[in-house]
Amino acid sequence: MKKRLMMVLLLLAAVLAGLTAQAVGENQGATAVSIETQAKPKYVFMFIGDGMSHVQINAAQILKGSNEKGNLSLKPLTFTEFPVVGLQTTFDATSFCPDSASTATSLSSGYKTHSGTIGLGIDKQMVGKTIAEQVKQQKGWKVGLVSTVTLNHATPAAYYAHVPSRNSYYDIGVQMVASGFDYFGGGAISKPDDGGRKSIYNLLLEAGYLVTDSKSQILNLTSASGKVYAQNPRLQDSGSMPYAMDMNENDVSLAQFVQKGIDVLNNPEGFFMMVESGKIDWACHANDAAAEIYDLFAFDQAIAVALDFAKAHPEETLIVVTGDHETGGMTIGYAGTGYNTALDILYNQKLSYVAFDEKFSKLQQANPTMGFNQALALVEADFGLVAPGKSTANKALVLSDLEYAKLEAAFKQAMLPAKQRDGSDQAYLLYGGYNPFSVTLTHILNNKAGIGWTSYSHTGTPVGVYAYGSGSELFSGSYDNTEVYDKLKQLTGVV
Amino acid sequence: MKKRLMMVLLLLAAVLAGLTAQAVGENQGATAVSIETQAKPKYVFMFIGDGMSHVQINAAQILKGSNEKGNLSLKPLTFTEFPVVGLQTTFDATSFCPDSASTATSLSSGYKTHSGTIGLGIDKQMVGKTIAEQVKQQKGWKVGLVSTVTLNHATPAAYYAHVPSRNSYYDIGVQMVASGFDYFGGGAISKPDDGGRKSIYNLLLEAGYLVTDSKSQILNLTSASGKVYAQNPRLQDSGSMPYAMDMNENDVSLAQFVQKGIDVLNNPEGFFMMVESGKIDWACHANDAAAEIYDLFAFDQAIAVALDFAKAHPEETLIVVTGDHETGGMTIGYAGTGYNTALDILYNQKLSYVAFDEKFSKLQQANPTMGFNQALALVEADFGLVAPGKSTANKALVLSDLEYAKLEAAFKQAMLPAKQRDGSDQAYLLYGGYNPFSVTLTHILNNKAGIGWTSYSHTGTPVGVYAYGSGSELFSGSYDNTEVYDKLKQLTGVV
Repeated sequence: MKKRLMMVLLLLAAVLAGLTAQAVGENQGATAVSIETQAKPKYVFMFIGDGMSHVQINAAQILKGSNEKGNLSLKPLTFTEFPVVGLQTTFDATSFCPDSASTATSLSSGYKTHSGTIGLGIDKQMVGKTIAEQVKQQKGWKVGLVSTVTLNHATPAAYYAHVPSRNSYYDIGVQMVASGFDYFGGGAISKPDDGGRKSIYNLLLEAGYLVTDSKSQILNLTSASGKVYAQNPRLQDSGSMPYAMDMNENDVSLAQFVQKGIDVLNNPEGFFMMVESGKIDWACHANDAAAEIYDLFAFDQAIAVALDFAKAHPEETLIVVTGDHETGGMTIGYAGTGYNTALDILYNQKLSYVAFDEKFSKLQQANPTMGFNQALALVEADFGLVAPGKSTANKALVLSDLEYAKLEAAFKQAMLPAKQRDGSDQAYLLYGGYNPFSVTLTHILNNKAGIGWTSYSHTGTPVGVYAYGSGSELFSGSYDNTEVYDKLKQLTGVV
Repeated sequence: MKKRLMMVLLLLAAVLAGLTAQAVGENQGATAVSIETQAKPKYVFMFIGDGMSHVQINAAQILKGSNEKGNLSLKPLTFTEFPVVGLQTTFDATSFCPDSASTATSLSSGYKTHSGTIGLGIDKQMVGKTIAEQVKQQKGWKVGLVSTVTLNHATPAAYYAHVPSRNSYYDIGVQMVASGFDYFGGGAISKPDDGGRKSIYNLLLEAGYLVTDSKSQILNLTSASGKVYAQNPRLQDSGSMPYAMDMNENDVSLAQFVQKGIDVLNNPEGFFMMVESGKIDWACHANDAAAEIYDLFAFDQAIAVALDFAKAHPEETLIVVTGDHETGGMTIGYAGTGYNTALDILYNQKLSYVAFDEKFSKLQQANPTMGFNQALALVEADFGLVAPGKSTANKALVLSDLEYAKLEAAFKQAMLPAKQRDGSDQAYLLYGGYNPFSVTLTHILNNKAGIGWTSYSHTGTPVGVYAYGSGSELFSGSYDNTEVYDKLKQLTGVV
């Protein structure tokens, strides 16, 4: 009977929390958010898909569903089945198309700042505490940061660093070591010695971290491993983990990095883990839908690992999944294809634009006078696309005359030294500063699939927030990205 | 004490509803949705912004906020402050870029069908009941349908008609009269006599409807007016209400049509009102952001009228606001402007592309050999844009050389008879079948504002669902558009 009364009281509190949330929702312009809740998660996962918004997510759902031939369906992802959804606005102090430094600062610390600034206010002086610093310092939680890009890149940095410019990689690296956070996993460290200073890797070792890029050592990590910096054995562009579609058995998957993070961090006091899929953003900058979607699949598999943990600790775990902003102005739909889409065409792309650029560059170096026809052989092998009139199993992969002309023009540009390439506004609209050949290839393949892009930069659409578990009800409704921090602060009880 | 116990029991029920909702969320692929709830709304508003998704909504929030000079903020809309948010997928039986007939059928009746089909299943035979028919027939509620486009257009038709093709306007009109619904307001009737048959207007009169297009008569409507067909005094393209930015004091606003709908429908049994803002879609087809955003403002003002009613009947009213699909592949961000946006540039556009086309056409007829310079005078007056080198108060409005060349090429196309214009794929990408001159003008102005478009058709992004009031909690999470009907069915208790 006492137990029953207790349960009624708990439910009553939860309902009151919901009702208060509703009332506060009406006043959503205000900065202060104070919703009463009984939820007290002590295992908090924050998943950030960099550059990921509604279209990226739905393209993944459609491609996942299109494994089933002829069936017009989409398959939900792990996180799109979470019971609570919210929408956050992403603008920063200087732009409606914000950057990852300012938006990650808003998510981690609850205030707006300049594009490019990490962990400092608009005056570039005010140092705000991050939720990760707060739970570590005030509650003794362990903290882990995982990223597919470098660990001193903007998004992870926003959980421990306070610098005017995201480009101060060395300073950020020093603050990373000073954070004393318990687990770093994923990519490398950008500019670790800044051209001659003591390497951040050495600073980590001096601070007692286990630093490893051995897959077997990583997969054997446990809560007895101490503080850990675990780096994927293979690196791709700018020290990042390879794109999911370029990975092989030598790599540690993002899901594995999250699993090992749980193994390292798990303790009775609690932990906070931020996991960034950073190359969703990079692929969208380059307008490469296939690379983006495969990385989103890998991200979703990492979320599934957290969900398994949450199901084993149902009253104590909160999972929040969101993006920091959209990248590329991606759309499912394109003027040239009208109401038709065929995302399964993307399956013909065998590697990311980065891996293709590498292959193309080697071919170019071996044969500086290579003709367009030689390049087309590579195009057929890696993208499935063939010249007009050529027979192929899938007619959708035959280039139209217009596409062929665009690709040939891009090839000619790509064969020129970078400085001799067309620098006009029109050329920027076409190539966005990327290798003209590969960006034209992804444009053509994406357009054939019915995918459009408007930009090589970030855009200003609101981003979904998907929440599961203890306290997830607070994440319903529309709000600003700064309020994601406010809600985490409230749920963790830090001050 | 009894009262307190009752309250605890009610809260308990509500909490259980929430918990069940959470459990069902995990199984969201399934078709059957059955969430226990105590909510029993008897006044239900369904607002559908045709073609409206996240970017349209956020562009409106940004333009609303940019009234305040130099302040980088956005102002929430009435419905973006609603406490509950969901996300619905919009694909239909034939496309991930679906049409308004199939999507409105899913929203009104809970099943998927072909693009172009209204109120019939995939076999074009199965006749499903619509939520509007069900509440009228089973519960004796009054029903109202309001649209800024014609009342036998796809979206309103999906609440009363059952036809294989949305183009069967006359048949739809006949079914509209037969529905016996209590209030129709907004635009005209498409093809009312189908070239010689008895006019739908006459059928309405014979069925006892008050048919009026007098503003004063419309504004005097009451619950004693009987069944009503109220048409705006002025019509624009295809029998629609004028774009909000083209309206004047002779028009009845969408908000007024909703207010009069409440006045006509209000009765103790209950009512259901569907309100469509249909020209958000049409403006997005034409890639005209200003016309789209002003119509979205007008839509939001209409929602505010419903919210006032809901606040006066808090336990009994539910408001759901959503879109049927996105149109145009609109993005806040464009390759040419990178991270910069300046949506306030849209304030320089004085009229919709439709109203501009009319003016341009008159000028063209008066002077068939008109030169580009003459057209530029019109451009400066109505869009603020000026030729390169010309001085103007706002430098952002000076055309670049590239823009000037594009506009001149479009002007030359526009001066040709339609049949002599460039019919190439490239021309379609540029003009989408619209008047080449006006669509190039809106493209240029939109791009300068930092807005991009990828399509002249519908696209496949999920659409937000914003819910307020009794039973609103059911609309949280991610689900399919068919489940919007399932939730309404459950809340209204129809079978």
